[in-house]
Amino acid sequence: LMTYANLPYVHCLAGEGQEVESYDIAIIGAPFDTGVTARPGARFGPSGIRRGSRRIAPEAAWDIYTGENVFLDWAKVIDCGDAPLTFLDNTVALKQLDATHKIISGRRANSSEFPTPRIIMLGGDHTTTLSALRSTYQHWGEVSVIHFDSHLDTWDPMVLGGGISHYAGVNHGTFLHIAHEEGLIRNTSVHAGIRAPMLRPKGDLRNDFRCGFEIIKAREIDRVGVKGIIEGLKRRVGQSKVYISVDIDVLDPAFAPATGTAEVGGWTTRELLSVLDGLSGMQIIGADVVEVAPIYDNPGETTLLAAAEVVHSLVALMVQRPVECTRAV
Amino acid sequence: LMTYANLPYVHCLAGEGQEVESYDIAIIGAPFDTGVTARPGARFGPSGIRRGSRRIAPEAAWDIYTGENVFLDWAKVIDCGDAPLTFLDNTVALKQLDATHKIISGRRANSSEFPTPRIIMLGGDHTTTLSALRSTYQHWGEVSVIHFDSHLDTWDPMVLGGGISHYAGVNHGTFLHIAHEEGLIRNTSVHAGIRAPMLRPKGDLRNDFRCGFEIIKAREIDRVGVKGIIEGLKRRVGQSKVYISVDIDVLDPAFAPATGTAEVGGWTTRELLSVLDGLSGMQIIGADVVEVAPIYDNPGETTLLAAAEVVHSLVALMVQRPVECTRAV
Amino acid sequence: LMTYANLPYVHCLAGEGQEVESYDIAIIGAPFDTGVTARPGARFGPSGIRRGSRRIAPEAAWDIYTGENVFLDWAKVIDCGDAPLTFLDNTVALKQLDATHKIISGRRANSSEFPTPRIIMLGGDHTTTLSALRSTYQHWGEVSVIHFDSHLDTWDPMVLGGGISHYAGVNHGTFLHIAHEEGLIRNTSVHAGIRAPMLRPKGDLRNDFRCGFEIIKAREIDRVGVKGIIEGLKRRVGQSKVYISVDIDVLDPAFAPATGTAEVGGWTTRELLSVLDGLSGMQIIGADVVEVAPIYDNPGETTLLAAAEVVHSLVALMVQRPVECTRAV
Amino acid sequence: LMTYANLPYVHCLAGEGQEVESYDIAIIGAPFDTGVTARPGARFGPSGIRRGSRRIAPEAAWDIYTGENVFLDWAKVIDCGDAPLTFLDNTVALKQLDATHKIISGRRANSSEFPTPRIIMLGGDHTTTLSALRSTYQHWGEVSVIHFDSHLDTWDPMVLGGGISHYAGVNHGTFLHIAHEEGLIRNTSVHAGIRAPMLRPKGDLRNDFRCGFEIIKAREIDRVGVKGIIEGLKRRVGQSKVYISVDIDVLDPAFAPATGTAEVGGWTTRELLSVLDGLSGMQIIGADVVEVAPIYDNPGETTLLAAAEVVHSLVALMVQRPVECTRAV
Amino acid sequence: LMTYANLPYVHCLAGEGQEVESYDIAIIGAPFDTGVTARPGARFGPSGIRRGSRRIAPEAAWDIYTGENVFLDWAKVIDCGDAPLTFLDNTVALKQLDATHKIISGRRANSSEFPTPRIIMLGGDHTTTLSALRSTYQHWGEVSVIHFDSHLDTWDPMVLGGGISHYAGVNHGTFLHIAHEEGLIRNTSVHAGIRAPMLRPKGDLRNDFRCGFEIIKAREIDRVGVKGIIEGLKRRVGQSKVYISVDIDVLDPAFAPATGTAEVGGWTTRELLSVLDGLSGMQIIGADVVEVAPIYDNPGETTLLAAAEVVHSLVALMVQRPVECTRAV
Amino acid sequence: LMTYANLPYVHCLAGEGQEVESYDIAIIGAPFDTGVTARPGARFGPSGIRRGSRRIAPEAAWDIYTGENVFLDWAKVIDCGDAPLTFLDNTVALKQLDATHKIISGRRANSSEFPTPRIIMLGGDHTTTLSALRSTYQHWGEVSVIHFDSHLDTWDPMVLGGGISHYAGVNHGTFLHIAHEEGLIRNTSVHAGIRAPMLRPKGDLRNDFRCGFEIIKAREIDRVGVKGIIEGLKRRVGQSKVYISVDIDVLDPAFAPATGTAEVGGWTTRELLSVLDGLSGMQIIGADVVEVAPIYDNPGETTLLAAAEVVHSLVALMVQRPVECTRAV
Ligand SMILES: [Mn+2]
Ligand SMILES: [Mn+2]
Ligand SMILES: [Mn+2]
Ligand SMILES: [Mn+2]
Ligand SMILES: [Mn+2]
Ligand SMILES: [Mn+2]
Ligand SMILES: [Mn+2]
Ligand SMILES: [Mn+2]
Ligand SMILES: [Mn+2]
Ligand SMILES: [Mn+2]
Ligand SMILES: [Mn+2]
Ligand SMILES: [Mn+2]
Repeated sequence: LMTYANLPYVHCLAGEGQEVESYDIAIIGAPFDTGVTARPGARFGPSGIRRGSRRIAPEAAWDIYTGENVFLDWAKVIDCGDAPLTFLDNTVALKQLDATHKIISGRRANSSEFPTPRIIMLGGDHTTTLSALRSTYQHWGEVSVIHFDSHLDTWDPMVLGGGISHYAGVNHGTFLHIAHEEGLIRNTSVHAGIRAPMLRPKGDLRNDFRCGFEIIKAREIDRVGVKGIIEGLKRRVGQSKVYISVDIDVLDPAFAPATGTAEVGGWTTRELLSVLDGLSGMQIIGADVVEVAPIYDNPGETTLLAAAEVVHSLVALMVQRPVECTRAV
Repeated sequence: LMTYANLPYVHCLAGEGQEVESYDIAIIGAPFDTGVTARPGARFGPSGIRRGSRRIAPEAAWDIYTGENVFLDWAKVIDCGDAPLTFLDNTVALKQLDATHKIISGRRANSSEFPTPRIIMLGGDHTTTLSALRSTYQHWGEVSVIHFDSHLDTWDPMVLGGGISHYAGVNHGTFLHIAHEEGLIRNTSVHAGIRAPMLRPKGDLRNDFRCGFEIIKAREIDRVGVKGIIEGLKRRVGQSKVYISVDIDVLDPAFAPATGTAEVGGWTTRELLSVLDGLSGMQIIGADVVEVAPIYDNPGETTLLAAAEVVHSLVALMVQRPVECTRAV
Repeated sequence: LMTYANLPYVHCLAGEGQEVESYDIAIIGAPFDTGVTARPGARFGPSGIRRGSRRIAPEAAWDIYTGENVFLDWAKVIDCGDAPLTFLDNTVALKQLDATHKIISGRRANSSEFPTPRIIMLGGDHTTTLSALRSTYQHWGEVSVIHFDSHLDTWDPMVLGGGISHYAGVNHGTFLHIAHEEGLIRNTSVHAGIRAPMLRPKGDLRNDFRCGFEIIKAREIDRVGVKGIIEGLKRRVGQSKVYISVDIDVLDPAFAPATGTAEVGGWTTRELLSVLDGLSGMQIIGADVVEVAPIYDNPGETTLLAAAEVVHSLVALMVQRPVECTRAV
Repeated sequence: LMTYANLPYVHCLAGEGQEVESYDIAIIGAPFDTGVTARPGARFGPSGIRRGSRRIAPEAAWDIYTGENVFLDWAKVIDCGDAPLTFLDNTVALKQLDATHKIISGRRANSSEFPTPRIIMLGGDHTTTLSALRSTYQHWGEVSVIHFDSHLDTWDPMVLGGGISHYAGVNHGTFLHIAHEEGLIRNTSVHAGIRAPMLRPKGDLRNDFRCGFEIIKAREIDRVGVKGIIEGLKRRVGQSKVYISVDIDVLDPAFAPATGTAEVGGWTTRELLSVLDGLSGMQIIGADVVEVAPIYDNPGETTLLAAAEVVHSLVALMVQRPVECTRAV
Repeated sequence: LMTYANLPYVHCLAGEGQEVESYDIAIIGAPFDTGVTARPGARFGPSGIRRGSRRIAPEAAWDIYTGENVFLDWAKVIDCGDAPLTFLDNTVALKQLDATHKIISGRRANSSEFPTPRIIMLGGDHTTTLSALRSTYQHWGEVSVIHFDSHLDTWDPMVLGGGISHYAGVNHGTFLHIAHEEGLIRNTSVHAGIRAPMLRPKGDLRNDFRCGFEIIKAREIDRVGVKGIIEGLKRRVGQSKVYISVDIDVLDPAFAPATGTAEVGGWTTRELLSVLDGLSGMQIIGADVVEVAPIYDNPGETTLLAAAEVVHSLVALMVQRPVECTRAV
Repeated sequence: LMTYANLPYVHCLAGEGQEVESYDIAIIGAPFDTGVTARPGARFGPSGIRRGSRRIAPEAAWDIYTGENVFLDWAKVIDCGDAPLTFLDNTVALKQLDATHKIISGRRANSSEFPTPRIIMLGGDHTTTLSALRSTYQHWGEVSVIHFDSHLDTWDPMVLGGGISHYAGVNHGTFLHIAHEEGLIRNTSVHAGIRAPMLRPKGDLRNDFRCGFEIIKAREIDRVGVKGIIEGLKRRVGQSKVYISVDIDVLDPAFAPATGTAEVGGWTTRELLSVLDGLSGMQIIGADVVEVAPIYDNPGETTLLAAAEVVHSLVALMVQRPVECTRAV
């Protein structure tokens, strides 16, 4: 009844034997927020982002800047609904999400030329990106991550949450560390929009570097402009395949109050969308928008609208550059 | 009891025979929102904008940038209250609004030199601008429209809402098309702040051009700056008479969440006010601020404050450049 | 239980004879809002700002821009809780606040080198700054004030509120005038971010100049940039000792809706924090963040987060440049 | 993706030739609110009520009072989604809604014994009930209406909205008058919970009586109790077939703030649900919950939860007493 | 533009020499809230209550319970707007309010039979009732007060706020004590709905008794019912003239969240209105609704609607029983 | 800085060797909400309830109904702050909470006669009650539980959450089952206010009975009144020692919207407080208020006020009846 951008719903998770409509780009919700360290609520992010996209009509969405309608292009874009995730056990939930990614990305795409469907995930807290990266690894191998966030999220589980237990160590601030440890990402990755404090003066930076990341801080945009940010990102990832993860808290709380660990001094929505649109031509093999916690939004649903438009830009990037699968599963 | 900026209330719509205080610039509310395609609520826009102007004291409103107090200048600025509009029949309501404009603009101004009073309308959804343009046409003939909006609003009634009925075709997305068809506007008009998608790839642009408009997109301000926008607007309208229509959704939802069809990636209030103030010297013969739907505002009433200040800037433009009436009624 | 940035609570106001832990920089709340002319509610500002700082962990707050952790530096930073102020008599309340400042600043600092502790006050309406300036005068003599605000706040009590009574004349718009009259501030002071209208065309400016202020208007940042603002402020105050007062309404209501007399067209949080961080090296002998009225905030608590980070920047400025006391008490 | 009570979605409005799963009780949304005289917003009522029902699990909804699970009983209960209604022309929209009712009620039910499926409509403003009554008339002839509301809604179109035009006369306060004029309802109908003022002293009551209604005022529950109300309703409708229309404004605004024309002094949710459950055994041939306008709800979504539970009670009444169709279509 | 119940505005405070329309019952706002001990905001109570009355149409307000329209009866009911009160000096503000009451009640009524107009005041915090009682004393001598409140409000200024200063002693918790000291009220007064704690175990009760009050606690309604409460009130005040003061916090916060010192466990709106309507026949010579602080209301404006309806009931009581003036001024 | 009811803070969790002030009744917060199945947010319950108690002054809290001030009686009541609980591992968090209870209840009370201090816990989600019951068992053995809730919370972990993992089986709907399995509670326990649906028709009831509970449904209060409920509870628990657990969702969402699994049709705050006060004389050996999730509250903080007053009533019950410890630790 309510899908992202009123796209067709496809029952992507249908059991064996059931016929499933094919697709090229799949939207999937990941209602999960028990990996957070501050305000919970991102479990309602997927339905929130869909609500924010209510006014997008796929047949009438011709972009004013590019003249394109990415929903009417070569790719069939659909919404798979939400992954069935428990709120009561993170370990189980991540396995459920791993399985979901596997099924959705494992079907044969609609396009005959580009047989592996790509996924845009609606979080959920940032822990969910770990599942997404495990999935992209299966199909495309190691990827560069372009990580829009106010936080590094490469914290060592021993530093953030992990003194306590292994279970606690898997969370929305450590998932990039774990992804690195699991060998899922290239050391040509990059953060953009960083401004939250570090937990350790040198250790955090050394560790972040070791995880394969370079840092573009939030205020750098004042120096180099949107154009400079775009160039920096392009230079960093080069010709590699790219996963884009957008933690909505990369935006300033004026633009995205509805998130769990909001940090002031961030980017405007206009800046973020301009940066994203500037990445056109990259080989995006997966993407997400995470940490949207609707209950903290204002009555006008500012955050939900912004998140929905970010998804729109991610769809555009994927449509603008189809990607061939380079690795057998 | 509550007027815009605590200005004097004048019973502008008094019946024949009743004496009415004269004025040069009249504020009039247009509580109407049944021409919208998304979130309703702009019927409470006029009282909302007045609430947002509560702290303006006409006798103590010396602008910090210009040093002027536009309420203590040559022009007598007053508030006529709201037009008596039904919520239950758009056709009737627009006729009521036409009549209201006719009465208010038809009285002899307070100034002996500039005998036609000008009107600033507080919407109400954007459909109400149609009545305003019909009214300005009576007094000043065809005008250039400077249209601040995230949407084009020149849609052909056949495209937006109109496949259904003639009644449905008159709405907040088609009124500029209709104004063009009625011959009310010059083909030196211009949109500013556009970013919402088009419904048709080429058709929309062709139609928009045919309606007399040029487009300045929202992100162009990043390239040319406030100054460039001002120059572009001035160049476009030349020496013609100008009607300014400000759809509050030209602002980013962070600045104006309280509107029906909010679009992210818009201008800041500082940008919009700077642009408006830069138009000083133009012959503004009418203006409005529309699509303010207070229920979507945050508790601090950000949108209402912004809308009230936009009205303030519009008053200033009118005061800075009195306009002689060029056409008999 | 809840202190600013989870810093240690010290019972700074303990009676004579009780031992009190020493400190170098003290946070003190001033719950007072009966000096306001518009929306009340700043009496809950101190607890609001503390709530906004909930996620700051002093042991893990290494700034991403500077690499420093100002809570683990030479200075012992603590929270004294709130001054005990009555809501029912402004005269009494200000005396209570005067006494509070006297006691807190009168204790011997933790550092042996810099024996006078400095205070950062969480307002409360802006009237409370008067007590703070009376206190700094006792220790450091006349100071330059860097006053971030959308309003001048140098109004003559005869002009703002004062026709009525002496009592009414002491308020959040006149306190800088009174501070000047009491000889507390140098005529090398400066406002930044001004955009609210003046009550009188010339009188306000003449009076403001006489009170020792220069004006940097809000939109000047568009012309000179953050860097230009910083240079302007530095040039103005020279080598003098500086008190920084941040009225949160210097921010645009999109960034700080939760304030009593919000004015649109203001700065972004990123701009304000960049300006503040650019003042590094100044001799800051006192500071405050005022006019935070939490009830007007949006559910995501945008304003509280911004205010908490402003305080963080103020602590940083104080830590970066210790100041020797130049005047016996 | 989001249906009422997580019930299965059925594409009830599928075109000819498409196979459609059969059902016994259908939920249908009617997003329409341009027939209101006060605060709009009920167009989002259907999705709001569905959101309020999010925690209902059909397989695990055993009522604590009755021990029954009405979703696992003989009847197949499903959600058809929303009727496709324009916001831009009431006349057209009502025709669209008429057609929707016709299609949904016209399919053969899942039960072989009771071949006519029944409909529970989620409004939308109260005008939508007119379509529902037109539909029930086709299948069951004239019915008694049990109308829970704070307003009479039998106003003569000449009195409410109708002096203006025929179009304006069809609205949320006149639909019961029109239903009477169209011969759809029996003169054994009854209002319950009435407390809003009448527009005319005697005329309203005379007219209301003529339309077939008896009035139970809100405060009568204090005199006769829930039990007395139930008895009064049963006595009034006797053995006739019954349509139940629940205007959510029958509840006090403390329990249902999210409605367009809220009236204080109403019933509690506990009272309303007890009354509804007391009607068990009646032949309910159609029902609705209308006037839910989510934007006016509080953050805890009190109204949406109440509305969802009212729908639950309506389903129960329908399940508890299957009804044979008495009239050929 | 916005008056209580859309009643005519009369410029009651016009200066000498100006002609003023006559009236029998006057509504006057008292925007004052610097006498509160907890959450401020009642300064916006008058405009809030007017907003809550927006849907009342005087010509179409025939009560469903009584069949009467109190706006079309013998009495001319009008709205005088707000008293001009400073926010910056309580002493001055109360004098301003005293003067306002004097002027409004001092004009000759419209009715020739009952020459003294009566006033219903919209607070403002409860301190404002002191001015009202001073005014009624001038015209009718000592009166019984029926005081609906969760708080006693007879606190000795020495106990509540008064240890500090005389100024602080005049506040929303002491005004009834002061009224007693000034000899304005009879010792046949009564509180209803009390539930807030006492500051002193015995002293408060002794003092309350001395001030002329009997106490009906909130939960007594569970024992004696609405009817019992009405009887208790009637018995207490006997045939004396009565001033009714309704502190909106007599309602439970579920019904009236928008107040400064909300106390749980209170009455429902239905209970309060039923009690008020039960007082029909009393000689009400003045009344008020106070402590409405709109910013704490929920989006549906529950409190404002309740307060507006309480005013409606107060008007009804005054219309139902005209009162002759018994005392020369 | 902010304690429950402004009571003294005691550092109850001080390490060995540190001296700790003694107490008789301790308030402890349990910020935990990762055991919930619906809306999270109760992790902010403890600070929310404290905020709701802001206006309680222990020295001036003489109850209007009883004449007592329970804070000035024999018992020393203090606030220990919050238990240090991780959000990232339920197993660890519950162990941390077990340890917290052990330390706080293990200290020697202030009273020499009643040496075991009692605890009132501020939740947190309902899972936290498990730790509390483990703790009371150590001191007083098996206890009767009076469980105010709309939900049974005795679900078998195999039924609710438990098909998945052992970890998932410990949650806010199963903790009473687990408490029974651990032998912590007597089979003289009782639920009050139940109205949420059962997951299984018979199984739930059988299991609930086996866990030692009797059920008083929400609507029973309409039949037997507050008095009947009190008698029912007293009869059920007899002379046994009693633990009172108040899930705030026992209240109707109109009174307590700020909770995770709100169920309509519940009790009013007046009813709940009357019931609680009626339990005077019982041997209460522990108590809690849980499931308060402040983000869902309305701006007036209705829920927080109600929760704070429930805690007040629990303190009163403990003070009214001291309890001797019957079991060595
Ligand atoms: Mn982040
Ligand atoms: Mn992140
Ligand atoms: Mn627009
Ligand atoms: Mn528009
Ligand atoms: Mn200011
Ligand atoms: Mn200021
Ligand atoms: Mn109704
Ligand atoms: Mn209705
Ligand atoms: Mn009170
Ligand atoms: Mn009171
Ligand atoms: Mn529960
Ligand atoms: Mn529970």
